[in-house]
Amino acid sequence: MFSRRMQNLTPYVPGEQPRDRSYIKLNTNENPYPPSPQIRAFLNEFDFDALKRYPDPLSNDLRNQIAAKYGVRPEQTFVGNGSDEVLAFAFYAFFDSHDGNLLFPRFSYSFYPVYCDFFGIRYHKIDLNSDFSIDVCRFSDADESCGIIFPNPNAPTGILLSLDKIVGLLDDYSSDRVVVIDEAYIDFGGASAVNLIDTYSNLLIVRTFSKSMCLAGARLGFAMGAAPLISALFSVKDSFNSYPVNMLTQKIGAIAMSDDAWLQSATAKIIAGREYLTSELRKSGWNVLPSGANFIMAGKIGLSGEEIYLRLKDKGILVRYFDIDGLKDFVRITIGTDDELKILLHKLPSA
Amino acid sequence: MFSRRMQNLTPYVPGEQPRDRSYIKLNTNENPYPPSPQIRAFLNEFDFDALKRYPDPLSNDLRNQIAAKYGVRPEQTFVGNGSDEVLAFAFYAFFDSHDGNLLFPRFSYSFYPVYCDFFGIRYHKIDLNSDFSIDVCRFSDADESCGIIFPNPNAPTGILLSLDKIVGLLDDYSSDRVVVIDEAYIDFGGASAVNLIDTYSNLLIVRTFSKSMCLAGARLGFAMGAAPLISALFSVKDSFNSYPVNMLTQKIGAIAMSDDAWLQSATAKIIAGREYLTSELRKSGWNVLPSGANFIMAGKIGLSGEEIYLRLKDKGILVRYFDIDGLKDFVRITIGTDDELKILLHKLPSA
Repeated sequence: MFSRRMQNLTPYVPGEQPRDRSYIKLNTNENPYPPSPQIRAFLNEFDFDALKRYPDPLSNDLRNQIAAKYGVRPEQTFVGNGSDEVLAFAFYAFFDSHDGNLLFPRFSYSFYPVYCDFFGIRYHKIDLNSDFSIDVCRFSDADESCGIIFPNPNAPTGILLSLDKIVGLLDDYSSDRVVVIDEAYIDFGGASAVNLIDTYSNLLIVRTFSKSMCLAGARLGFAMGAAPLISALFSVKDSFNSYPVNMLTQKIGAIAMSDDAWLQSATAKIIAGREYLTSELRKSGWNVLPSGANFIMAGKIGLSGEEIYLRLKDKGILVRYFDIDGLKDFVRITIGTDDELKILLHKLPSA
Repeated sequence: MFSRRMQNLTPYVPGEQPRDRSYIKLNTNENPYPPSPQIRAFLNEFDFDALKRYPDPLSNDLRNQIAAKYGVRPEQTFVGNGSDEVLAFAFYAFFDSHDGNLLFPRFSYSFYPVYCDFFGIRYHKIDLNSDFSIDVCRFSDADESCGIIFPNPNAPTGILLSLDKIVGLLDDYSSDRVVVIDEAYIDFGGASAVNLIDTYSNLLIVRTFSKSMCLAGARLGFAMGAAPLISALFSVKDSFNSYPVNMLTQKIGAIAMSDDAWLQSATAKIIAGREYLTSELRKSGWNVLPSGANFIMAGKIGLSGEEIYLRLKDKGILVRYFDIDGLKDFVRITIGTDDELKILLHKLPSA
């Protein structure tokens, strides 16, 4: 009844979304602030009759907007139904175990091994430094590989990799293997590698509208890279789903992308909240990893991550813990509103 | 740079969507009527702040609505980002060349071989009868196979297969191989096989909101089948994209699904238009296949499909022709509004 492919699957488990009671939700790295108010005006005026037609399969208006914002050409952009779909297409297009293992950090986005199992790609996890930072030399020194992928800032550690280390990695690594940098959280203070795509034709940048753009509900992600990489992603899309992005999301995404003032103000609030939470936690003796994202990894001696999670959940606050050796002492806390962070600090357990 | 998988791809080519001038668009089987007006009211009242949160990954409200409408249980329903995505997941989950070829009709939805190439599934096309109808015996008599898929009504022929023939096929075929019936066009007068899913645990029904529900722009499809089949589709989804259906589409779909009066009235208009066009064309000596869909296949002796297409395009009307042996004498014409059909009849070429 089921294909042999099914035997290899170990599906991704998204953060819990319980409905038994109302929680302060700091567990799935959503943005606590609303998206651009221009979206409200658009929805009021949208001619809903238009929904009877298929959306633009190329998402041209949206891609033009992305190209304008990032100073790239439209043919260097690709959009999909969330960055998860863009990543899935990239795994299909670029990573092939015949050429070696795919490399990604020991602690990283937990969907990467799921994609590997889905498409039958072997992978090798590269250890982090003891401070949880990525050591680029361990990637370039690894045995024959079919590509590299990592988030920057990394998840769930939140730690940023500097642009000069990324350049060093790209210089040392085979120019015939694709390097995907998953910049889901880069807008929260990090330096994007997007300006490198003209120099490194094997570099693909993947982005999402779910975090800094406050549009997790719209499901929109995008990629930027050399035109041949983008063209390959289009071939994959057109072999899977010709119209991955619905009409409303294409338009909402273009609006959000054009409202830079609002983006800057929303991310500034998140960054301020992150610095405030980090500083307050450290004052209380917590170990907080330095974060460039809209979340922090924090732990306290004498408490396991699971214990912190359970005690906070009991008090109406959801955070995320990881049942993974090396991460068991931490919880990942999404940066909420200032009020939410104050309640969190008030309800934190002590050892 | 590119995986070996890429060498196998022959992407699907959707119907053209030219932007050089305004056409009467009868080429992609969209519905010419607007979706339920309740969607307008929903969009006006929608709290756009909600877009900052991820949508329900299980689409529970929408699936409950589908279950209620079709008299099935929620765990017998699955939704995806267009029926194309649902079909892609089904190909991944159920069809495995180790068990034999996948079987589908010689003339059928041209995305089926694309999915096969995408996932590495071998297939065998089963000839139709000379009147273009499906002969179910040729499926059950075929060599060892890994499954069957066909649209009902078939596309692009539009010809319906009766429920008793479907029962005959299911009775004769291995109960351990999945049979997918793609009912994209069933609402235009056909009898659905959905009531058979409790009897045949290997039967999966795939549907779309793009045709009878007038929501091609929202990208929504669904499937109904025995709970183990649905559970497998969820495993595939959660290995590819945890949140395939955005928040607005989930809600819009539930509204459309609940507005049965509007659905009945919209489909009645399409059926009346189809019968009118068929009758008028036949009066003028055209050969029109009997259609149960929102399109017809029509041809006239002395004219190739391409010639009809080109002459109509020149006059501002888009239809679709097929560069496929056996179909070259036809064009596929989507049923538009009554006014559009009158203009079409006025501008038809003669041999």
